[in-house]
Amino acid sequence: MEFPSKLIENAVGELSKLPGVGKKTALRLALHLLKAEADTTATLAEALAKMRFEIRYCDTCHNISDTPECTICANKLRDHSTVCVVSDIRDVIAIENTGQYKGTYHVLGGVISPIEGVGPSDLQIDSLVARMGAPESEVKEVILAISPTMEGDTTAFFLSRKLRDFEGVHISTIARGIPMGGELEYADEITLGRSIVERQRQAR
Amino acid sequence: MEFPSKLIENAVGELSKLPGVGKKTALRLALHLLKAEADTTATLAEALAKMRFEIRYCDTCHNISDTPECTICANKLRDHSTVCVVSDIRDVIAIENTGQYKGTYHVLGGVISPIEGVGPSDLQIDSLVARMGAPESEVKEVILAISPTMEGDTTAFFLSRKLRDFEGVHISTIARGIPMGGELEYADEITLGRSIVERQRQAR
Ligand SMILES: [Zn+2]
Ligand SMILES: [Zn+2]
Repeated sequence: MEFPSKLIENAVGELSKLPGVGKKTALRLALHLLKAEADTTATLAEALAKMRFEIRYCDTCHNISDTPECTICANKLRDHSTVCVVSDIRDVIAIENTGQYKGTYHVLGGVISPIEGVGPSDLQIDSLVARMGAPESEVKEVILAISPTMEGDTTAFFLSRKLRDFEGVHISTIARGIPMGGELEYADEITLGRSIVERQRQAR
Repeated sequence: MEFPSKLIENAVGELSKLPGVGKKTALRLALHLLKAEADTTATLAEALAKMRFEIRYCDTCHNISDTPECTICANKLRDHSTVCVVSDIRDVIAIENTGQYKGTYHVLGGVISPIEGVGPSDLQIDSLVARMGAPESEVKEVILAISPTMEGDTTAFFLSRKLRDFEGVHISTIARGIPMGGELEYADEITLGRSIVERQRQAR
């Protein structure tokens, strides 16, 4: 694609690095911004930079947070005896939107993937073990809410091995209402909510 | 949708103002940026702001340009006797990509649309008339390459009326290879290229 301007070419180049944004879509977005008030672009650019540079993660659960402790961990009304382990912040948002879950979370920050060079030490697994082993820990149940893909299953298997030494802590996996190979975040709210409620306790 | 962070909520809010970007896609983009190097976001934000605030338009054809005269108008090898009138910069890029056209352009900046309050005076129509009427003008043919939608046809009709006083200047419209009601920019390159080559000279 030939561009009449380096400025627009750069912008299109950067936009098309975003997932799911092709050159044609990127051009569409760039031209939209050019047509709109200059403020629209300024506000967008600022919101993105501010988000990226000021974002914090919860010290306890590694969920996204504007403060050292996220609103879920800080909420005394939530059930702190239950920890729902997810791979991604997206999954926290998806589960919260079901309105079916009142416990806390632990965000791994990915799944074990030898192909992509992601090992257990790249994920928030040690911090989960430390959190459960802490003297003040109230954890009685860990729900493994990890997408049932190959990498997800590997991660869940690794975790259940790692966690089975915690006596008195039940390990569950979310009910397999979610189709095999499906991404958790694309599940509809009812299916996802149900799979939390009907979670299956894992044999030790 | 509940967000664990105002920063992310703002970014998602701004992203979802872009055309074709829903809340779910916006969240996906935001989380992608959070995962990627901070540089990715910085470069994107900067490219967008720079584009929006530093963009210039060609004094002659109103195409996007980094200089007062665009690369097409400045190119002596192009056929300056032919002007292709388009509504949008997108159309210039689309026609250039066909490789079928060697003349110059005139970008109207939209189409006449009473519903959206766009009248002839909001478009670069007077500047086209002035350009054609200038003593140094070499224009011998004007190609109306405007999407055959209702507003596009109105605009083309208005233009052909306005331009028919220029004796010795032929007015053509691009061949109707493009389906009625279709957007020019979505036409495949072959159809669009052909519609330029087989343009129909308009009866005066
Ligand atoms: Zn937290
Ligand atoms: Zn020009």
